[in-house]
Amino acid sequence: MATEAAGEIKVGAKPTMHYVLATVIQFNQGIKRVHIKARGRAISKAVDAAQITVSRFLKDKVEIKDVKIGSEEVGEPGKTRTVSTIEIVLEQTEK
Amino acid sequence: MATEAAGEIKVGAKPTMHYVLATVIQFNQGIKRVHIKARGRAISKAVDAAQITVSRFLKDKVEIKDVKIGSEEVGEPGKTRTVSTIEIVLEQTEK
Repeated sequence: MATEAAGEIKVGAKPTMHYVLATVIQFNQGIKRVHIKARGRAISKAVDAAQITVSRFLKDKVEIKDVKIGSEEVGEPGKTRTVSTIEIVLEQTEK
Repeated sequence: MATEAAGEIKVGAKPTMHYVLATVIQFNQGIKRVHIKARGRAISKAVDAAQITVSRFLKDKVEIKDVKIGSEEVGEPGKTRTVSTIEIVLEQTEK
């Protein structure tokens, strides 16, 4: 059951390593796929977190399966602005 | 001939709109595919530039074909560090 679930990590203002560890913990709990999401300036940090996870902590165990970029409207009605988004899908390589 | 070529935009410290315009100009010259590349903190800006290009300036004419993330070693020998990279491939939707 647990191995079928997908996790989600929202990258924000905390240090990169916080999100790396949160991702590693989810995989160690048996989750098969983790979506790392970020908006705006946090996008660079999301890419860092994904890279550190797959190339250092979970090397050969987890791979980058997909990267999607998009945009979202944020802010209150009348003064919205558009921010870019990223979603990086990490998946276990082993069954 | 020109429609077969692929262009490359390296996103750095200039304002986002600089890279948007550089991308739009390449497509207007008949280039079929443009690779927008960035490293480190410029990654967020590269995503912004790609999104602004496809959703505002070249809406329905150009689409995001692929997004790849990776990492690179930078710096002098002995004191290198790893930076994350992104490559966003934009392609003309029309033939």
